[in-house]
Amino acid sequence: MKRSFASDNNAAVHPNIMEAIVNANTEDYVSYGDDPYTEKAKQLFNEIFDTDTDVYFVFNGTGANVAAISHIIKPWQCIMSSSLSHIHNDECGAPEKFSGSKLITLPSVDGKITPDQLKPLLHSVGFEHHSQPGVISITQATEMGIVYQPHEIEAIARFAHENELYLHVDGARIANAVAHLGLSLSEIITLTGVDVISFGGTKNGLMMGESVVFLNPDLAKDFPYVRKQTMQLASKMRYISAQFIAHFKDNLWLQTASHANKMARLLADKIKDIPEIKITMPVHINAVFACVPREIIKPLQEKYFFYVWNHQNNEVRWMTHFNTTEQDIDDFVLTIRQLLNHS
Amino acid sequence: MKRSFASDNNAAVHPNIMEAIVNANTEDYVSYGDDPYTEKAKQLFNEIFDTDTDVYFVFNGTGANVAAISHIIKPWQCIMSSSLSHIHNDECGAPEKFSGSKLITLPSVDGKITPDQLKPLLHSVGFEHHSQPGVISITQATEMGIVYQPHEIEAIARFAHENELYLHVDGARIANAVAHLGLSLSEIITLTGVDVISFGGTKNGLMMGESVVFLNPDLAKDFPYVRKQTMQLASKMRYISAQFIAHFKDNLWLQTASHANKMARLLADKIKDIPEIKITMPVHINAVFACVPREIIKPLQEKYFFYVWNHQNNEVRWMTHFNTTEQDIDDFVLTIRQLLNHS
Amino acid sequence: MKRSFASDNNAAVHPNIMEAIVNANTEDYVSYGDDPYTEKAKQLFNEIFDTDTDVYFVFNGTGANVAAISHIIKPWQCIMSSSLSHIHNDECGAPEKFSGSKLITLPSVDGKITPDQLKPLLHSVGFEHHSQPGVISITQATEMGIVYQPHEIEAIARFAHENELYLHVDGARIANAVAHLGLSLSEIITLTGVDVISFGGTKNGLMMGESVVFLNPDLAKDFPYVRKQTMQLASKMRYISAQFIAHFKDNLWLQTASHANKMARLLADKIKDIPEIKITMPVHINAVFACVPREIIKPLQEKYFFYVWNHQNNEVRWMTHFNTTEQDIDDFVLTIRQLLNHS
Amino acid sequence: MKRSFASDNNAAVHPNIMEAIVNANTEDYVSYGDDPYTEKAKQLFNEIFDTDTDVYFVFNGTGANVAAISHIIKPWQCIMSSSLSHIHNDECGAPEKFSGSKLITLPSVDGKITPDQLKPLLHSVGFEHHSQPGVISITQATEMGIVYQPHEIEAIARFAHENELYLHVDGARIANAVAHLGLSLSEIITLTGVDVISFGGTKNGLMMGESVVFLNPDLAKDFPYVRKQTMQLASKMRYISAQFIAHFKDNLWLQTASHANKMARLLADKIKDIPEIKITMPVHINAVFACVPREIIKPLQEKYFFYVWNHQNNEVRWMTHFNTTEQDIDDFVLTIRQLLNHS
Repeated sequence: MKRSFASDNNAAVHPNIMEAIVNANTEDYVSYGDDPYTEKAKQLFNEIFDTDTDVYFVFNGTGANVAAISHIIKPWQCIMSSSLSHIHNDECGAPEKFSGSKLITLPSVDGKITPDQLKPLLHSVGFEHHSQPGVISITQATEMGIVYQPHEIEAIARFAHENELYLHVDGARIANAVAHLGLSLSEIITLTGVDVISFGGTKNGLMMGESVVFLNPDLAKDFPYVRKQTMQLASKMRYISAQFIAHFKDNLWLQTASHANKMARLLADKIKDIPEIKITMPVHINAVFACVPREIIKPLQEKYFFYVWNHQNNEVRWMTHFNTTEQDIDDFVLTIRQLLNHS
Repeated sequence: MKRSFASDNNAAVHPNIMEAIVNANTEDYVSYGDDPYTEKAKQLFNEIFDTDTDVYFVFNGTGANVAAISHIIKPWQCIMSSSLSHIHNDECGAPEKFSGSKLITLPSVDGKITPDQLKPLLHSVGFEHHSQPGVISITQATEMGIVYQPHEIEAIARFAHENELYLHVDGARIANAVAHLGLSLSEIITLTGVDVISFGGTKNGLMMGESVVFLNPDLAKDFPYVRKQTMQLASKMRYISAQFIAHFKDNLWLQTASHANKMARLLADKIKDIPEIKITMPVHINAVFACVPREIIKPLQEKYFFYVWNHQNNEVRWMTHFNTTEQDIDDFVLTIRQLLNHS
Repeated sequence: MKRSFASDNNAAVHPNIMEAIVNANTEDYVSYGDDPYTEKAKQLFNEIFDTDTDVYFVFNGTGANVAAISHIIKPWQCIMSSSLSHIHNDECGAPEKFSGSKLITLPSVDGKITPDQLKPLLHSVGFEHHSQPGVISITQATEMGIVYQPHEIEAIARFAHENELYLHVDGARIANAVAHLGLSLSEIITLTGVDVISFGGTKNGLMMGESVVFLNPDLAKDFPYVRKQTMQLASKMRYISAQFIAHFKDNLWLQTASHANKMARLLADKIKDIPEIKITMPVHINAVFACVPREIIKPLQEKYFFYVWNHQNNEVRWMTHFNTTEQDIDDFVLTIRQLLNHS
Repeated sequence: MKRSFASDNNAAVHPNIMEAIVNANTEDYVSYGDDPYTEKAKQLFNEIFDTDTDVYFVFNGTGANVAAISHIIKPWQCIMSSSLSHIHNDECGAPEKFSGSKLITLPSVDGKITPDQLKPLLHSVGFEHHSQPGVISITQATEMGIVYQPHEIEAIARFAHENELYLHVDGARIANAVAHLGLSLSEIITLTGVDVISFGGTKNGLMMGESVVFLNPDLAKDFPYVRKQTMQLASKMRYISAQFIAHFKDNLWLQTASHANKMARLLADKIKDIPEIKITMPVHINAVFACVPREIIKPLQEKYFFYVWNHQNNEVRWMTHFNTTEQDIDDFVLTIRQLLNHS
């Protein structure tokens, strides 16, 4: 059984999710979301967020981010994110293309940003020559696998609202963050003042399916048109909705995320004493960042697909997922040791 | 078993397609299309088009159309389509939003357009004040269920290429058109000179999955960036590719389309003698358009979901699909007759 | 002295306007509109509209239209105009490109539209697949030289506001319309319920300078950013403002427009009895539309530049302007008669 | 006579330029550039660039930059400039809005960038997730008043072309750079390999008028549509063209720029020994950057308008222009000394 350490989206679909898809394959249903699966899935979102939300299912993470942000920004405003954000580095400019807005990045090592970094951008306010602050976008957990504490999100949300800005969260790996913190989604997102979150599923065992969740339903007004215009409206939507129902059933979403986190922790523990390898980031979720000897990268990639994160210092990213086993970790570490001639 | 006559996208997923999805759910695979399912599916496209194509899988029909057209147009050029086209009426302005181009429509009753209608638009060529002709987009089969003959497409393609334009085909229901014509896809699309086609799957039994097929692979240069920026790049792409593999296996795609067409034909035959109902369009594919007494619309919709196409003359659209049965048709016609007090 | 009958923008600059430009060329002033000329010009707009307006100077008519409309529309909404509108035919798709919106045209012979034509577009309201009605844009006077009566504008404005739409007026030739009606600008625009007007200057004797006038200043909130982002913010703005000050001084703007209108009237009177020529539109302002024998078009154009409006029926457009003289008209008509062998 | 040290666009229009405008105000001419003034002005551009160029007149600097860059980039490519560039900081996001492209900035102190800074961005090439390198945009002279040496531009151009990128120059103050270098425009721009330059006029004594100059005319293909769609096509274009004719006559453009540069040099010389003031940048052109005691900023601004460049360290920017006199400098320095109690 081949295993990838490249990304949680190299995984297959969780069996429970697949079963839900198969079970949804019955008779005809009205398309575009006017079906009982979508109705049910939306209710579950209200439950896990412990508030009245307005939820929209979309195809992928870039779609979720771009639709959410475009909806709450004006073209002459700017999006503010960390320099490591997915919206900046991994969406081929889709946020700028679709929203028409400028993306301003703040330097970051772990993917987090702070109100102190945002403050200087307020100097632009009121000057017609400058793109105006509009939306702050943070990633929870960050692209470097680091998790914001609720009080950190709260501080950013407060800063946002004091300055008439919105706070968007890219939650492609929100489940891993929740699992790491051991707190409720409500404590992390709802009560901290987040306005809208891209709530991910695909990286946590779904086949394809993400969502845009408005914590303040008023803010969602007219969002259906934005979803359609961003080409993110699925006709046979029940097949996305059914996945989310299974995702939340018996807290599957937290079990899968916890397991993935645990596997990364295990991997880190097993390599931390290898002298040639230097783990570069704390391991909060399902990612291990490490600098490794350049000569082992290629041969290791031949057996296990993964990405070089930083070519300058031979930093690699190894990701685990819901399906990674302890045996996978053992085999992977053994291969590393063999390549390093440690046996 | 509930049956809808609203759209072929109200159908469930064909069992063979679902089986293929389930069977693809094995080990880890590299994401974004670098997997054996995608490789295999692409080969099949070359076979059914009988030429070297360049194929890109996307999420939905609007995504396919917008990505394809945006790729081959400049913002200061215009898209020319029929006034009944999906890109004009049913994509919430996504083509204009993403391509930046003007959409110019030509009046049509059956959804077809002709070179004679396009010719006057050439008067704009060379005048900087006018949006310049760029892309012709036709729908095969049209939104009114009508099928272009190959020579008609060939004439449009010739007109396009003589005037340095591209020809795009919205093939959301291309399978139904192929089934109707009884010709090969090559005869209908490849040899007629089409440049790029949005080749549909979802309306013909897939769960979600469409494709953009370039008949001239040179034209596809750099399209991967366009697909990504249009938010149509699936991470777990194998689950789309696997659907297309099953779609083509043993000509399933033509069997399903033929069956859907046949059911529409049956429906038309069974209602054509009802004096209160007037069929308004020839029945080429899986749609029946008809004017009906206004008073039966509501009660009929309570039992069978369908759309009123034209409120002015009480014209409705009834669509069949791969799963519609003769019994469904009989029941539906019986209900109509009962509502008309024909029993 | 060469004379063109092509367009009022083939004219030179009115001497009073030029004098104002020269007189503004004194010492240093703060750029981007924070100067006394701009202040003064804005006050004059309030006076001629007889209400508190919010006025923004821009470079050209396309800029005025695109900035105004983009400001009051969402990308998923549509702009509704006549099929003959400048925004549809003569702006190279700039409205779609910049606003991201769809432009829907209503068939028109004289360039006017009516609420009855707009009503069917409301069928789209609330359906996420359809671009949503957003802004109605009319042209006063129309591209065919026809003037709306105030009650006609009022009816469109009422329709707009009853349906949560905005009404924009393309007033590239608003002065000619005001001169024709013999009413105040307030009666025609302010009191009829117009939301925002592109108020033209260049076609009425200015060098370059147009304006966007919000009748409801609240609606102008954040417009400075839109003007900047549409690349319409002049650094040395005083040179546009000074033109408008002179434009309004002693009602120059109405004198120039009246004169232009009168010259067109004169031209029409002098050719109406020429049997080979058929005047095709009522002459309200400074344009005469006429079908002429094809063989005189080329030779006439060699002496007097003008445009063929419709190649199919040899319809030409002849425009007069503030500087056209009776002698110009006499010479022009004489040339026509000579070409027709009428002497 | 009030004098501003805020920007060269606070100046009036040079008398020769104004005279040219007045002299162009004669009879009717065809609009949109088909006039003898525009023809003549274009020839002059060929002469000063010493090559066959393709020149397009536009309204303002943002328009020039956005039109030029949009023309040579694809939406999925990125623009690379210094972090201090006008296109990044002072155009309200217009480059992103119109081109749809991402703008990536490279840290800079003096506004210059180098190939070494650009090289790491090539890591993105070929990965569909990343915005692809497309256009390098440099400013000559930079926003910090620093001038690139020709060999520096040549190195960037070589890097660009080796990597299939284009090089755009924002030449809002190109005249000041040419005057500083004492070389020909050909040596600085044509022979260094620049692809297209926004050639400024307004900051050097014009009323309003900038230009986009393609050094390789083939690259200009279809640019007229881009200019129109960017709302930068002037109807009465002769009034821009006439300004450029006067601009180049008897090398006026270099005289005015040299004078402005000289006045900045004079200002720097006169304040360099004031201990409370620290000049922060070399003075190449007509700008002096200096850190000053915070308490004199407000009172000095009351007499002379200027901008605070950096609020953190009280750095101000003082600009001179063609009309600044030695007396102006003396008075300004005297005022500073008085505020510092130096008399």
